[in-house]
Amino acid sequence: MWRDLEPLGRNAGSGGYRRYAWSEADVECRAWFRAQAEGRGLAYEVDRNGNQWAWLGDPEAQDAVVTGSHLDSVPDGGAFDGPLGVVSSFAALDELRGRGVEFGKPLAIVNFGDEEGARFGLACVGSRLSAGQLGVEQARRLTDADGISLPQAMERAGYDPTAIGPDPERLARIGAFVELHVEQGRALDLSGDQVGIASAIWPHGRWRFDFRGEANHAGTTRLVDRRDPMLSYAETVLAARREAHLAGAVATFGKISVEPNGVNAIPSLVRGWLDSRAADQATLDTVVTGIEKAAREYADTHGVELDIVRESFTPVVEFEHALRDEIARILQGASDRLEVPVLGTGAGHDAGILSGSVPTAMLFVRNPTGVSHSPAEYAAEDDCVAGVIALADVLEGLTRR
Amino acid sequence: MWRDLEPLGRNAGSGGYRRYAWSEADVECRAWFRAQAEGRGLAYEVDRNGNQWAWLGDPEAQDAVVTGSHLDSVPDGGAFDGPLGVVSSFAALDELRGRGVEFGKPLAIVNFGDEEGARFGLACVGSRLSAGQLGVEQARRLTDADGISLPQAMERAGYDPTAIGPDPERLARIGAFVELHVEQGRALDLSGDQVGIASAIWPHGRWRFDFRGEANHAGTTRLVDRRDPMLSYAETVLAARREAHLAGAVATFGKISVEPNGVNAIPSLVRGWLDSRAADQATLDTVVTGIEKAAREYADTHGVELDIVRESFTPVVEFEHALRDEIARILQGASDRLEVPVLGTGAGHDAGILSGSVPTAMLFVRNPTGVSHSPAEYAAEDDCVAGVIALADVLEGLTRR
Repeated sequence: MWRDLEPLGRNAGSGGYRRYAWSEADVECRAWFRAQAEGRGLAYEVDRNGNQWAWLGDPEAQDAVVTGSHLDSVPDGGAFDGPLGVVSSFAALDELRGRGVEFGKPLAIVNFGDEEGARFGLACVGSRLSAGQLGVEQARRLTDADGISLPQAMERAGYDPTAIGPDPERLARIGAFVELHVEQGRALDLSGDQVGIASAIWPHGRWRFDFRGEANHAGTTRLVDRRDPMLSYAETVLAARREAHLAGAVATFGKISVEPNGVNAIPSLVRGWLDSRAADQATLDTVVTGIEKAAREYADTHGVELDIVRESFTPVVEFEHALRDEIARILQGASDRLEVPVLGTGAGHDAGILSGSVPTAMLFVRNPTGVSHSPAEYAAEDDCVAGVIALADVLEGLTRR
Repeated sequence: MWRDLEPLGRNAGSGGYRRYAWSEADVECRAWFRAQAEGRGLAYEVDRNGNQWAWLGDPEAQDAVVTGSHLDSVPDGGAFDGPLGVVSSFAALDELRGRGVEFGKPLAIVNFGDEEGARFGLACVGSRLSAGQLGVEQARRLTDADGISLPQAMERAGYDPTAIGPDPERLARIGAFVELHVEQGRALDLSGDQVGIASAIWPHGRWRFDFRGEANHAGTTRLVDRRDPMLSYAETVLAARREAHLAGAVATFGKISVEPNGVNAIPSLVRGWLDSRAADQATLDTVVTGIEKAAREYADTHGVELDIVRESFTPVVEFEHALRDEIARILQGASDRLEVPVLGTGAGHDAGILSGSVPTAMLFVRNPTGVSHSPAEYAAEDDCVAGVIALADVLEGLTRR
């Protein structure tokens, strides 16, 4: 199952994955999902927002147990972020069938579209639309770097974009959603556990900083005559690190776009994206306010205009305590472990988006290096198997309750 | 003549020109050149490096007087940098024909290919190849951002790349080359002159700084676990400004390429290009050495690897004094002016490349703002006319000597 998925959308140069939403690579991953579903005799369907579902039992019945994750990737991402959850879902179903489990409730496996937001700049588009956390008009206006809109991209990929929007009836039929994901830090490695349960997702957001100066010749324009936005950008990158360090948070400028981006031209525009996250809202506010204030001062100094736009924001997500405790009980009952670790994370997930509409939980699988969003992202085979078994135990327990 | 050229390769969004070498826009500009040549009954030819020539008189005769410039542009460049020289060349020929001048020597107008280096990262490719300042094998290995090689690009544009290389016989037939160009600073504006003569081109070069860190998740990777190359890049940008300021030189980071360039990914690679120039070699060495030293220290601090590659370098160019003085005498004889200003420039030009092989001179036309490499680049119509008249006077004088 892994072997079929592995080569799709992998870049030969970087070894990383470029499975951007609705791209050719994404379409191939989606075909893989459908084949996995149909090969297991599951009822395959696509919802109004292009998310893929594979059903065992009646999709129209209530109190369904749903698991799954996403198949798209960041630019040059790793093999595990997203796909591990989908592959483990199918593997857990195989495991449960091997055990001869009779399911008391409908069970579904889902692949949410465009979780990473690599193409349109907004993460979790599929789950946000379904949960009503992204307006239909706003979604229609999303465009990629080539000016292709989200509806155009869906259409080119063979999906119908006309009905995108909230899907409350579908979500109301879900009794519990459990997403398994490779850990993106080193907490499980440090504690020596193979699998953990999520407590909360840190509040996090994306801000776009547009520094506008004046394009000019790099050889003939005196330093005093320049309005070079690269300088204020550089100062702001360093301010972000400083503010995050002071607050015990994280802040990153990982994406940049420069115009005209010529070696011998002073830029007219440097557009940088800030990603920042912290354990609580007040800390995050402090960090971002500090960075914004510094950036405005730097821009003023260089005669550069600055616009700051908050492109997305997700408040802190506390996963449902009752479901979390139930999962902990199931996992402790099923193994020799005294305690399954419960941990927070700085990463956003579809499970976080859905947690406002559906009882939601997450399982994390150990990542020995903590590296993620990189071709070096990794989980040991042993730990992946432990994740599948844990997910199977959880699904079995939840369909029985 | 201007009107036909004006819309070619102009981007509707920025208002700037994107006439990259061998692109569709460049091919259109080249068709314009050919039409201008043939419309005037000039003999049109393309040399082995794709440079276009329009001849009045015998191209095989010796001691030809040649004028011209280039038609390609930087990304979102202005309308004047390059095209003003080509358009003024044709207009000067029209002026001389209007005067009934009989030419004692062959006269040619040239459009050198790929002067700006916007596509393949190396400036003045056409003139460098002809002058033997760029190796054939090195030229064949040049590739653009899409992986298209220079020979492939030439071929797709309908040009034969098989014979690219030095063209000493052709250059040996040139008695003088005069390039008219819009000024890229404000010296003429400050002195109140419409036209000036070039004294020298500052030494200048391009260096590529590859900062390699480790791609990782921007939300879950602790600051202490990061090897973020964006931080050392930002520090280096500020160091470049500082070093240039201290030395009275210029240094600019105007082009950047980031991998994977995702909002929620710490970059694995930040590649920044430094353009630096100074009035003399020793000053330039001081500036660049200072920037390199600072960059290596920053990279070490962040656990980032740094490779620095000098991609191009042009030593100081002193234009031939005899030709310069002759042009000054011609211009003073033809007008009421007591003196034509002689000025240096930080910008590279085909005339600078050719100056090693051919007696070469340059005329500058006033730029009221000094803005260049930007859609705001501008020269007043009066000043453009003065440039055409001055060029006509010079060509007349040189073909008579």
